[in-house]
Amino acid sequence: MRPKDIKKYEAIVTSSIELVTKIGFSNISMHKIAQQSNISPGTIYIHFKNKNDLFEKIYDKIREEASDGSLEGIRDIPEDNIEQLFKTTWKNSLQYYLDHPNYIDYREKFEQTPLMDKMSTKVYEIEIFLKKMLNKGIKNRIIKNLPIPMLISFSYTPIVTLLRMHVKGTYTLDDQQILEACNLAWRVIEL
Amino acid sequence: MRPKDIKKYEAIVTSSIELVTKIGFSNISMHKIAQQSNISPGTIYIHFKNKNDLFEKIYDKIREEASDGSLEGIRDIPEDNIEQLFKTTWKNSLQYYLDHPNYIDYREKFEQTPLMDKMSTKVYEIEIFLKKMLNKGIKNRIIKNLPIPMLISFSYTPIVTLLRMHVKGTYTLDDQQILEACNLAWRVIEL
Repeated sequence: MRPKDIKKYEAIVTSSIELVTKIGFSNISMHKIAQQSNISPGTIYIHFKNKNDLFEKIYDKIREEASDGSLEGIRDIPEDNIEQLFKTTWKNSLQYYLDHPNYIDYREKFEQTPLMDKMSTKVYEIEIFLKKMLNKGIKNRIIKNLPIPMLISFSYTPIVTLLRMHVKGTYTLDDQQILEACNLAWRVIEL
Repeated sequence: MRPKDIKKYEAIVTSSIELVTKIGFSNISMHKIAQQSNISPGTIYIHFKNKNDLFEKIYDKIREEASDGSLEGIRDIPEDNIEQLFKTTWKNSLQYYLDHPNYIDYREKFEQTPLMDKMSTKVYEIEIFLKKMLNKGIKNRIIKNLPIPMLISFSYTPIVTLLRMHVKGTYTLDDQQILEACNLAWRVIEL
């Protein structure tokens, strides 16, 4: 894409996420997206086949970026330092969505639409990494010998619950709270 | 309501939940609900002002019933036995949604629609109970002195994550798993 086109592409994506956050998926149309982004429907259709294609590509972009963000700095940590690997990905993951507050809302809304059926087969790098790391931790007797989905439900998924409250303003995550939550998440899974 | 009307009311509610689970909120209409429940639109409008009124009443019914279900047997437990109170409400809450697998899906989908803005001010009995119990546990040095939203995010909300996987079939909760998860939830918040 030319720089000009990249700029337009970004504007369409940003406007669509804003609109979904504001009015939800039920009430959205390509017309509204065109208005919000100030880009003609014709240009939007150059980049996206249709509304669903646009929504799916945005979801995938968010998940990809969040996955990359969560894995930042991981290569500098020794492979057998499970605690540091866990805490780094945990804090990275929270931080990514704190930096993009609209994204967690878009992600949660999207996952409750029928569009998710198609997307749910894709596995992101962070998921593969976490699974491998937790299994290694279990083997090395550092992490509780419980099923991986249970370990993730009690340590990693609460990030989403905390973020949801933070974004809504019912509970504020400051640096101290994040540190406490991260330590709690580790103690949950630590043997 | 006459027994005949109660039966119709229940049929409308059950059919609506089934439809939402199948096609989501975006694609639903009163016409489709009438077809699915085999009840005339005229009769539906006797009980519900409009589609949103119907959806809100169903959500409220699910939350009320889940709250009542979670608090079952609580009165027989001594007030200062925080562990038993926690574990009972935890298992009750999971069991309620295991018994009504469509309800968790309806609840999660509803909470991602703009209709939730209006409903989010209502506080259910179980929420008041949990908050009071956790505060008492903190005061009596039985539960970790952490903010209530954090305690709930790490102990109570994983129920939803586990249920979501169970309903989708990606992870199966049997009695042993439920016991392990409940014990883990308690250890998370125990001082």
